[in-house]
Amino acid sequence: MLLQKISYKKILYRILLFLQRLHRRRLVTGGLDASTGMTTYKKTPSSALSGSIQLAISHTVAGLSSKPERDVLMQDFQVVETILFPSEGSNLTPAHHYGDFTFRTYAPTAFRYFRDLFGIRPDDYMLSISRLPLRELSNPGASGSLFFLTHDDEFIIKTVQHKEAEFLQKLLPGYYMNLVQNPRTLLPKFYGLYNVQSGGKNIRMVVMNNLLPSVIKMHKKFDLKGSTYKRKASKQENEKKNPTYKDLDLLAQLPDGLTLEPDIHVALMKTMQRDCLVLQSFKIMDYSL
Amino acid sequence: MLLQKISYKKILYRILLFLQRLHRRRLVTGGLDASTGMTTYKKTPSSALSGSIQLAISHTVAGLSSKPERDVLMQDFQVVETILFPSEGSNLTPAHHYGDFTFRTYAPTAFRYFRDLFGIRPDDYMLSISRLPLRELSNPGASGSLFFLTHDDEFIIKTVQHKEAEFLQKLLPGYYMNLVQNPRTLLPKFYGLYNVQSGGKNIRMVVMNNLLPSVIKMHKKFDLKGSTYKRKASKQENEKKNPTYKDLDLLAQLPDGLTLEPDIHVALMKTMQRDCLVLQSFKIMDYSL
Repeated sequence: MLLQKISYKKILYRILLFLQRLHRRRLVTGGLDASTGMTTYKKTPSSALSGSIQLAISHTVAGLSSKPERDVLMQDFQVVETILFPSEGSNLTPAHHYGDFTFRTYAPTAFRYFRDLFGIRPDDYMLSISRLPLRELSNPGASGSLFFLTHDDEFIIKTVQHKEAEFLQKLLPGYYMNLVQNPRTLLPKFYGLYNVQSGGKNIRMVVMNNLLPSVIKMHKKFDLKGSTYKRKASKQENEKKNPTYKDLDLLAQLPDGLTLEPDIHVALMKTMQRDCLVLQSFKIMDYSL
Repeated sequence: MLLQKISYKKILYRILLFLQRLHRRRLVTGGLDASTGMTTYKKTPSSALSGSIQLAISHTVAGLSSKPERDVLMQDFQVVETILFPSEGSNLTPAHHYGDFTFRTYAPTAFRYFRDLFGIRPDDYMLSISRLPLRELSNPGASGSLFFLTHDDEFIIKTVQHKEAEFLQKLLPGYYMNLVQNPRTLLPKFYGLYNVQSGGKNIRMVVMNNLLPSVIKMHKKFDLKGSTYKRKASKQENEKKNPTYKDLDLLAQLPDGLTLEPDIHVALMKTMQRDCLVLQSFKIMDYSL
């Protein structure tokens, strides 16, 4: 009998990989412009989008950190802060090359509190996001979201649809409660929710943790669904250097499952049960955002 | 120059006395029935009221503690649990002598969490409330609420008006946030919110901490308002054994104010500022309930 000892971290990263991939399954709204070779989102070139995000996030985080810290109130979850960024600059904002845009920060005080809980200092957040250009993630398959990765691999910035942004905002008080009661939660970490408005288009974005920073070496990847129906990596996938296996592959490759130390098993199950309770309470079946 | 060293606890109890007294200022809905000599509230004799509360609270707390502990969800703040207590008893409830009544527990899971945060174990809560008869507080002056004190001096049960109960329920998520972020809060501790319905009348009650348990010896009492207009204890009050002084008396008796140790002063001010922020966010001018 094969008993595999696998560390807590590795297990987590396998589960998180699955969640991460869930995030990416979306309808197509972004695409590649065949004539220019540029990625666009709602007809906005992704380069202009990422540039304006970098500018605006670092501007608002700096502005926020000049305000004294205070407790989060219920009302803070509904706040939306609006700042105009004319390309020629203003008394409050710097000049830039991306065309005039309006930047909205959802629940700035609440997200500041979340970032603080997650141990992200304002200057680290700003530097990660704006010091070097964002990398655009090639986004294979069904997803229509754009994904940007900060140069240091810390954060993912992902476009979300109107409904998703609204839903996330409505979810914030419950999200807060879960963070406070269940600090080991495996649910995604949300660091900010923003809206770049330019030329009549609204592009909403969420900043979240990068579940798979490149420093983590994985020796095997599974994308698990809890179903055995057609859940086998394709021949094409199998030929890859690091294939992403599925449920049936797991059963074949690890017939005895994974062996976890008892206390880690208990802690992990408990955390996941608590996370499920929260998802259930929000009627979330598939918690991609 | 007179410098008075006064302990943190004593200061707190002075402030809390003030808050406690605020709680008691209310319009009259309760009274003394001249013909029988019994206190009544909405025509219900207070003895019947206190008996049914004791029965119903201990019944529901016992029921609740048989359910497994779990995290509080946003939805829990809106839950109202209803149990029928027919006088002849039922499969679920014991027989009693108070006439049929319906008992409603507001946000049972949330209040269980609060009691837990406050370090109140379910059996202690039940025993305090139901082991011995409640003492009815003589309620001098303007208040129309009935006050009951548990035999061990731990809890106050106070009738509240419909609007007050509604307001408190609406306030619960913000109250939760304050407890979690500002655990040293000086705001009242709420342990439960209930409704006894009988004969078409609804009597709502809140269970809260007794700010002035009799084991605490006070050497001086001030009821402070932050105003010097007509804020002097009356001649009649001054003749009492333990007079309650007011703002002008404080200035006369302690012209140099109170001297607190710096760290205690800082902690106290910070806590009170945070409490004020919460009260302000709920537009509470005078936070009697």
